[in-house]
Amino acid sequence: VTIRLYDVAGQDSNHRFSPFCWRIKMALSHKGLPFETIPWHLTDKSAIADSGQGRAPVIEDGEHTLHDSWRIACYLDSAYPNTPPLFTDASAKAHALFIKFWCERDLHDAIRPIIILDLLKAFHEKDKAYFRESREKLFKMTLERFAAEEEKKQAALDRALVPLRDSVSLNQYIGGAQPSFADFIVFGAFQWARAVSPTQLVTSSDPIYAWRDRLLDAYGGIAGKAKGYAV
Amino acid sequence: VTIRLYDVAGQDSNHRFSPFCWRIKMALSHKGLPFETIPWHLTDKSAIADSGQGRAPVIEDGEHTLHDSWRIACYLDSAYPNTPPLFTDASAKAHALFIKFWCERDLHDAIRPIIILDLLKAFHEKDKAYFRESREKLFKMTLERFAAEEEKKQAALDRALVPLRDSVSLNQYIGGAQPSFADFIVFGAFQWARAVSPTQLVTSSDPIYAWRDRLLDAYGGIAGKAKGYAV
Repeated sequence: VTIRLYDVAGQDSNHRFSPFCWRIKMALSHKGLPFETIPWHLTDKSAIADSGQGRAPVIEDGEHTLHDSWRIACYLDSAYPNTPPLFTDASAKAHALFIKFWCERDLHDAIRPIIILDLLKAFHEKDKAYFRESREKLFKMTLERFAAEEEKKQAALDRALVPLRDSVSLNQYIGGAQPSFADFIVFGAFQWARAVSPTQLVTSSDPIYAWRDRLLDAYGGIAGKAKGYAV
Repeated sequence: VTIRLYDVAGQDSNHRFSPFCWRIKMALSHKGLPFETIPWHLTDKSAIADSGQGRAPVIEDGEHTLHDSWRIACYLDSAYPNTPPLFTDASAKAHALFIKFWCERDLHDAIRPIIILDLLKAFHEKDKAYFRESREKLFKMTLERFAAEEEKKQAALDRALVPLRDSVSLNQYIGGAQPSFADFIVFGAFQWARAVSPTQLVTSSDPIYAWRDRLLDAYGGIAGKAKGYAV
């Protein structure tokens, strides 16, 4: 059975930038599970209504429909125990959950203002107003204001990246000698930026850059070949 | 063989506040290994000269002398494989390394200005000048200036604590159903504060408070019974 993944797409339906969907594309690739992606737009709520909510990623695997990248990862390890694990055991999974929360707060919050205007441009025309309105309500300011303060943004990113840099200076992956779902979580944030923004987040001499390169090249280069900026 | 741990002590030799030494006291307790602590002062460099460097924790285990809390933890799992693990496997260990770097940067940096003047007071008279001079050189400002800006400090701590709060809202420990060395690393930062400062870092309704309570009570209450403030 080929797993179907609803994957956020832009004005160009081959343009895929959701950090949460990238987690799952990397996870499925890591496990060697065949899958196809279905381009999905933020306002296509009816297409994923079976999942009981309105956000991608959503996967359909035979009779199972699931949403939420963390739940999908747990499901994949459980449903396909004879494939390379995303979590090697319960303790590794609990630690990865900490890294997920770090990523969604510290790293996403640091990257978001840097890329948000480029991200807005990438969305399908029919999604742009929805994206702007929902985010401006959340941030309580215009996207343009949210994106301002150039110097502060880079300083905040540099500070946020410290534990990642220290980790991948000592190990090949956050998961050690092999990537774990923690790698895919954090890598998703970099794919989000790379897909939409020409801004270079880390220099080529940064250990994070080499770590990202390893994941861009992994699994036949599924991430590296995807539409984005070579930054 | 009883393991000997050189443990940073204050003016009162029963006052033990090093976050790095707390990691090891919790780790040894978790593993059920008998140990004794030797009160050690920052300026007693000769007492730990065998370790080839000048900072605690240092352990002596028979013929082995080791320093650095991470290396000591790795040694303990390796030397005592039939005791409860600090790291369940290589991936859990790699993830814990990320959490260590997060803790030492984000959490220690957020707690340090809140407690530093109380910490200075706790040191032995012969250590106070050394502590002040070495830290003022590092921070490039006086300790009093470093400790200023009351509102900023609490806001920085609240922000830093997010991934920890999210984790221990879902799991009993950072390591899941059982504590791992990642718990002891992060707990060490709270013991550092609790030992010297009356400042309450988290309120009693915070999930972090309940997590800390579990570790204060663990292993016969070794941490909870230690000299400190009931905050």
